[in-house]
Amino acid sequence: MANKRSLGARTLLYPAPVLVVGTYDADDNPDMMTVAWGGVCCSKPPCVAVSIRAGRLSHANIMLHQAFTVNLPAVDHVAEADFVGTVSGRDVDKFAATGLTAVRAEHVHAPYVAEFPVVLECKVVHIAELGAHTMFVGEVLDTKVDEEALGPDGKVDIDGVGFLAYITGEESYRALGPSVGGAFSVGKRFKTD
Amino acid sequence: MANKRSLGARTLLYPAPVLVVGTYDADDNPDMMTVAWGGVCCSKPPCVAVSIRAGRLSHANIMLHQAFTVNLPAVDHVAEADFVGTVSGRDVDKFAATGLTAVRAEHVHAPYVAEFPVVLECKVVHIAELGAHTMFVGEVLDTKVDEEALGPDGKVDIDGVGFLAYITGEESYRALGPSVGGAFSVGKRFKTD
Repeated sequence: MANKRSLGARTLLYPAPVLVVGTYDADDNPDMMTVAWGGVCCSKPPCVAVSIRAGRLSHANIMLHQAFTVNLPAVDHVAEADFVGTVSGRDVDKFAATGLTAVRAEHVHAPYVAEFPVVLECKVVHIAELGAHTMFVGEVLDTKVDEEALGPDGKVDIDGVGFLAYITGEESYRALGPSVGGAFSVGKRFKTD
Repeated sequence: MANKRSLGARTLLYPAPVLVVGTYDADDNPDMMTVAWGGVCCSKPPCVAVSIRAGRLSHANIMLHQAFTVNLPAVDHVAEADFVGTVSGRDVDKFAATGLTAVRAEHVHAPYVAEFPVVLECKVVHIAELGAHTMFVGEVLDTKVDEEALGPDGKVDIDGVGFLAYITGEESYRALGPSVGGAFSVGKRFKTD
């Protein structure tokens, strides 16, 4: 068994997702920013959390409208996803700069990214001030997926899309690799009954 | 631009992490369970969230001790990680069943998994009842990493370890693939100044 080295209080959790959060400002100008601190947090009702620093335009926008979208970029938009996480919507029209298209969501007052294959429309149901970041929990009111991202079984074609993962510390985006086991299946060999 | 199909309110967010949560029960018996609903939620103080259904032993244990560990399994323990997510610690001693080793954490009252390469020791700082799941936010008090999982630069050797991702809907564990771009770097081509 390996010896462990203490690295102190860190956020070394792999992988993180690459979530592009869509919001409207007070004048209904669309903005988007990329966050890696987030994920699913409840199955019923379906909820996702995204954490955003106070001071960010997205933070103010979500506080104002109590709504956001979560857009999952595919590998062909890794540069766009990176860019929109590094500049402020106060300085740059990120949709214009990247050529991406803002579409008004159907169920919440927020824009989604037309070119990204998976979109979650979320209304805020819980806010937690944790320190540098505010965590916004959104209930997912609808999920929209590109027709061409769906397989013949109606499920998302994970390999066909090419989703991204964010790797803390390495500061890189990675592709997803092959399956290494079925959930609720590969562990059955430990069952005794 | 592709047409989008509405799939209703779903938790289709890729990838999710594979987090093995370590806790003690009222008699200090160690337990662990695997959750995919979780992730980082604050940088300073470093915090992670894990969501667990009410009724689970881990839920009761965290409520009791206000502490847990998050353990990241590598691919060589995918079967163990799957198993401990499918049975209850009320019925099975999961450490005995898998042969994994519980070690008392240094900073919180919870056990960690000696054989897993990355461990976060967490004390609860926020609890949100969201519906089927309770979200526990833990402040990371220490991070422990196997010496052999660290590269010569002191960073975690992502490829050497082989971390797991959970894919909702597909219900599979996947390996991480190659880097497809550097964060805060690959998007620079959109900058105009």
